[in-house]
Amino acid sequence: MVVKAYGAYAGDKPLEPLEITRRPPGPHDVQIDITYCGICHSDLHQVRAEWAGTRFPCVPGHEIVGRVSAVGAHVSDFRAGDLVGIGCIVDSCRHCEECDAGLENYCDGMVGTYNFPTPDEPGWTLGGYSQRIVVHEGYVLRIRHPEDQLAAVAPLLCAGITTYSPLRHWQAGPGKKVGIVGIGGLGHMGIKLAHAMGAHVVAFTTSASKREDAKALGADEVVVSRNPGEMAAHAKSFDLILNTVAAPHDLDAFLSLLKRDGTLTLVGAPASPHPSPDVFNLIFKRRSIAGSMIGGIPETQEMLDFCAEHGIVADIELIRAEQINEAYERMLRGDIKYRFVIDSATLAG
Amino acid sequence: MVVKAYGAYAGDKPLEPLEITRRPPGPHDVQIDITYCGICHSDLHQVRAEWAGTRFPCVPGHEIVGRVSAVGAHVSDFRAGDLVGIGCIVDSCRHCEECDAGLENYCDGMVGTYNFPTPDEPGWTLGGYSQRIVVHEGYVLRIRHPEDQLAAVAPLLCAGITTYSPLRHWQAGPGKKVGIVGIGGLGHMGIKLAHAMGAHVVAFTTSASKREDAKALGADEVVVSRNPGEMAAHAKSFDLILNTVAAPHDLDAFLSLLKRDGTLTLVGAPASPHPSPDVFNLIFKRRSIAGSMIGGIPETQEMLDFCAEHGIVADIELIRAEQINEAYERMLRGDIKYRFVIDSATLAG
Repeated sequence: MVVKAYGAYAGDKPLEPLEITRRPPGPHDVQIDITYCGICHSDLHQVRAEWAGTRFPCVPGHEIVGRVSAVGAHVSDFRAGDLVGIGCIVDSCRHCEECDAGLENYCDGMVGTYNFPTPDEPGWTLGGYSQRIVVHEGYVLRIRHPEDQLAAVAPLLCAGITTYSPLRHWQAGPGKKVGIVGIGGLGHMGIKLAHAMGAHVVAFTTSASKREDAKALGADEVVVSRNPGEMAAHAKSFDLILNTVAAPHDLDAFLSLLKRDGTLTLVGAPASPHPSPDVFNLIFKRRSIAGSMIGGIPETQEMLDFCAEHGIVADIELIRAEQINEAYERMLRGDIKYRFVIDSATLAG
Repeated sequence: MVVKAYGAYAGDKPLEPLEITRRPPGPHDVQIDITYCGICHSDLHQVRAEWAGTRFPCVPGHEIVGRVSAVGAHVSDFRAGDLVGIGCIVDSCRHCEECDAGLENYCDGMVGTYNFPTPDEPGWTLGGYSQRIVVHEGYVLRIRHPEDQLAAVAPLLCAGITTYSPLRHWQAGPGKKVGIVGIGGLGHMGIKLAHAMGAHVVAFTTSASKREDAKALGADEVVVSRNPGEMAAHAKSFDLILNTVAAPHDLDAFLSLLKRDGTLTLVGAPASPHPSPDVFNLIFKRRSIAGSMIGGIPETQEMLDFCAEHGIVADIELIRAEQINEAYERMLRGDIKYRFVIDSATLAG
């Protein structure tokens, strides 16, 4: 059926209202009436064709929450009325080593929520800036938060899992000292999650003005990374530093803060490379630089349940669909604490 | 006492015969009459002042084997006549977290076998290009190889442990696919060790001429890294790639060969940086780039025992002391299979 959406017809054009077609639910499909969709920086990169291969029209959005409005005949885990979420993944090959391990995010056949090939019209996936989406039951997440928190739950589907997964994988928890670099959409979730996991959390920011905000989010300490003295005080002390900053910057400044066997995990990819890190900084303490990309379906469910249990949601600003272009500009200026979320009811016009 | 040695008085001067003073053994010291000392590329970097902070006169050498000639009153584990080795470490702080863990190689107070501060004359340590050395018992390794293999055991003390430690740490063994990049002093040991550990070993070389040599060393497969087709055939398949090449080169070519959660471990540090690795290559499969530096004393003993048990030694060319400068030039040309070892008897002149 045809539903209203917001998207762009070209990389140099603003997003505008458009209509898209969703498939009727198949036997294993869940049809979701979207209530809110978060705005991720990836949305902007993709729709503005800053990344290769954008197909137009492009409808971004992979931080989707809503209510089930229909299910296929063979769907048993979901029923109409359930609160559910869809993140960055709407399908995968379902038979590789990664899929078997519940790490669909690392499956070579992963189908992203937008801009990935699909048999559906128009031939590529269209995301959550829309009224409705139809997804195979295996990629639908259950939301256990109170319904009045639903808008603030949406960003958990990307910003939440992108930080939760590496924090779990590199074992953030009691007795561990964890750094979070950058206090934005991802970083503010990283601080909340690492704090809830019981780690000693140090937030790194370039803006002294964010010091109190970071503490309010759950940071035990805040370091202004432009201040060498503050940085040096933490030399060789971190088990894990989660770096959410995608702009090219000096990684050595953070590598030198890791203790022996510590890891600097990057979750943002810069458009142009970071300055090459100093190999001595890796060798001298058996340190690692790693990357991590979102998370698998089971872990995303685990993250949502963890957040429901700990009362964790994103800090958001709710906007109307017609404010999306303005929100993009504000996002580029860092003028958001910390995530824009679209009220999908406003798509109706 | 005064003993004969070989060293340099300045970074731009060749090595020449000189005399140095060794302390009389203290209560916990072991005095070793050196029989052989391997030549490591680090020796060349340090003595030619290519690394910062070389103190002159400089006597390199940290692949030392010999026979105990005297022990201090409180030494119980060693006695005169024992075959022993000294590697890259002759002391450490003995009370930090690293020392407690037997990882003296990561102790901030580690004292290297040459060019590190010491109360002994002349104020910095002097290495194994000498007739005798005196070392605290805690840093002396026992050699269980047959005595006629002693010269070929010497390189295990650096080239051996530098490759053994990361192979163990990142769990090379049966069912694991392990790459070894570079077939030189370190790489040839890496191939032998990974093979003995039971891993499927793939050697990477830029020279097709080394193909048969690598197989003879124990490689199951050999890839000429300049051949994109050969490289592509191994995409996303390695658990671990141990990179022994210190010259700056493209790390992405190897990162892309790692499977999910795979690690590229660097044991060589380039004088100028590698091209900056692509962060997407890390993120897409949760890959890591890590560093590793030699190994701790307990692990070095473990490595020596493992090698004795498996009949592993280095492939060497034995030289006289007066050939050291020529050996350096040949090492720079790659004209050595695979390690020069000095016959210390020739130091007497």
